Amino acid sequence: MNGRVILLNSGKTDAYRHLVKFVPATGIDVITERKYTALYPTNTNLHYVNDIADETEVLNVARKLDSSDSIAAVVSPSERSLPVGGYLRTYFNLPGTGFDVAWGFANKSVMKSKLRSAGVEVARALTISNIRQLVDAGDEIGWPVVVKPVIGSGSMNTYKIHNREEAASFLETPQADWFRNSRYQIIVEEYITMKGEYHCDAIIHNGQVVFFVLQRYFSPLLECTGAWGGSIMIGKGDERYDKISAIYPKVVKALGLKDGVTHMEAFWTGTKFIVGEISCRPAGGGIPKSILLKYGIDLWDAFTAASLNLEYNHKASELIPGIIANIDLPVQTGRLVDICTIDELSSIDGFVSADLSPVGTLFSEPLNSSSATGIVYVQLQSDAELEGTLQQLKERYHSAYES
Amino acid sequence: MNGRVILLNSGKTDAYRHLVKFVPATGIDVITERKYTALYPTNTNLHYVNDIADETEVLNVARKLDSSDSIAAVVSPSERSLPVGGYLRTYFNLPGTGFDVAWGFANKSVMKSKLRSAGVEVARALTISNIRQLVDAGDEIGWPVVVKPVIGSGSMNTYKIHNREEAASFLETPQADWFRNSRYQIIVEEYITMKGEYHCDAIIHNGQVVFFVLQRYFSPLLECTGAWGGSIMIGKGDERYDKISAIYPKVVKALGLKDGVTHMEAFWTGTKFIVGEISCRPAGGGIPKSILLKYGIDLWDAFTAASLNLEYNHKASELIPGIIANIDLPVQTGRLVDICTIDELSSIDGFVSADLSPVGTLFSEPLNSSSATGIVYVQLQSDAELEGTLQQLKERYHSAYES
Repeated sequence: MNGRVILLNSGKTDAYRHLVKFVPATGIDVITERKYTALYPTNTNLHYVNDIADETEVLNVARKLDSSDSIAAVVSPSERSLPVGGYLRTYFNLPGTGFDVAWGFANKSVMKSKLRSAGVEVARALTISNIRQLVDAGDEIGWPVVVKPVIGSGSMNTYKIHNREEAASFLETPQADWFRNSRYQIIVEEYITMKGEYHCDAIIHNGQVVFFVLQRYFSPLLECTGAWGGSIMIGKGDERYDKISAIYPKVVKALGLKDGVTHMEAFWTGTKFIVGEISCRPAGGGIPKSILLKYGIDLWDAFTAASLNLEYNHKASELIPGIIANIDLPVQTGRLVDICTIDELSSIDGFVSADLSPVGTLFSEPLNSSSATGIVYVQLQSDAELEGTLQQLKERYHSAYES
Repeated sequence: MNGRVILLNSGKTDAYRHLVKFVPATGIDVITERKYTALYPTNTNLHYVNDIADETEVLNVARKLDSSDSIAAVVSPSERSLPVGGYLRTYFNLPGTGFDVAWGFANKSVMKSKLRSAGVEVARALTISNIRQLVDAGDEIGWPVVVKPVIGSGSMNTYKIHNREEAASFLETPQADWFRNSRYQIIVEEYITMKGEYHCDAIIHNGQVVFFVLQRYFSPLLECTGAWGGSIMIGKGDERYDKISAIYPKVVKALGLKDGVTHMEAFWTGTKFIVGEISCRPAGGGIPKSILLKYGIDLWDAFTAASLNLEYNHKASELIPGIIANIDLPVQTGRLVDICTIDELSSIDGFVSADLSPVGTLFSEPLNSSSATGIVYVQLQSDAELEGTLQQLKERYHSAYES
């Protein structure tokens, strides 16, 4: 690669780990926040900003870097870095996703408006500028509603509000103050009554969905924090698989992504999918690894290659028969002082592998829907086996924290 | 129009004058700089920023406006406001030219790179981050070179540098300090030896060039400041007309404009055109009016309609036979204390109309390639008549300034 590569990242260790497979570490400049320092090897070229989502601040650093050796590519794998990553690509005329497309993925209000215009079913929603408009917005949408910032990821700062009274009380909470102090608009949307929440992770090449995997979250995201989260693959014969494969190309076309990796979340009503949101980066948690184990497809490699304007031509193959579930081991705040061994877990039916946090790991607030003490991957013949496997896992897994 | 319309503008009076034909003044919010106040009617909703090219500052104003009544469209007619105008459209998901496309038109380095990739011939150029790299860049490109900021308009901060020695002296001048203090990169490009500089103004609809007019500048832009500038139309039978009509669609496609008005400048070498630059706004000076007089096509209406996501369906018709020249009356700094009358000018051959600045007008530095005390429009049968007409005009025109 001629020129330097910028990695605009929070603390996603997968991002750097995969990037050095394509580009020597000396050719990589990481723009990040000081608190993530320890997550990078000591010889990494680190450049600090206070906020990786601050366009002006990041652009200033990038311009300085560019003036000594021009920037060839920008990799922006964390949700917060998507818009500024796109901005840098447009600004420096680099390959990959520019600002217009990145913004459509990052801003949920813009995203839903584009999807709606393209005939993709999404929840009814209103965008408000001040949290005090929540009551009126809820009245208009119909209660209950979900309220969240237009920019954000996972379940962070996302609340289900059941009625007018709850909305009024919510306005008195510190959570409402967060919205008051935030620079972002707020989206208030219809709460979808659903039979399950799904995620569908895909590789996009030349604007086409060339590979995707559909999985069901164990329980809707909003309720899983701190519990046994995870997701399980849906087999190709399932009607939901066909339904999502009809929707996905429309979503990608509506948002204009040419090359990259997407993580879409959708609600299944029992008869159809309603698209929740979609991002243009690999999913968090155990999702990428579950796909790697099953199909040999590395979403992080595909994402990194697309960011560098390189081809990712790996063909999917069935490495493990059946379906794979990735199971998040529950987490709590505090220092992990004891945890079971992989050996103890390996005796559960269908065990494939497990990644466990080492003793000493500190888990601090805010925990989110991707927080876990570890992830266990199991192979199943069908969805029906999940409950038994989870039961076995719960019996064998143990950990201890010190607050 | 449902919602408010933002006009992000310097002092282009045509912009506001045309916008109020489409939108009532009460629905328009002008974001501008304080020094342009007098150019707007007193009842205009004016909102001030220090710099209309400052994204953060403009976005803050726009967000406040949007929170009370949502923004429906953004009109950004001045060169300096193009990128931020595009940014606002992307940010608020509005119709029209978004940031990615606007940036390709605004940043000459990005523009030329896109044009080159699309097979459009442009001058060889290097982009440098520091003016001290001028000597090396000139050596690499070959002298003489033209140096200018990647963002700018007309001939402002644009210099022809003949050789190494002149480059070295240039670095000691206040003009070089301007580059040192500028936030923009610098483009150093080959000086094209040419038989003439042309401009070609077009209306783009659905990505297609649906109307265009080719005109030749009297003399290359860089040398005309303060002299008798202007331009003259090229007839449809001319080979240059065919040549430019083959290039224009490639340029528009390369830059990705869907709907709008473009002003392209190109050098004629005697056998082919080399594209200089292109903007996505109506031209300055007498160009739009010359086209209106000849064809009944109002580029400002077309531009405004495109910005508002409305159709401009006016069909061109030959209102005046032959070709039209628009002639800039020379300007100097100071207060205009006397000027000839339109009657005095109307006796020149082919006179069509004239717009003269009123006595009392103050012309201050920096004058640029669009500065004029007035503009005279004349009708000619051919290019050959221009010299005689200019001669008559010079005999009749008189003005006086007080410094």
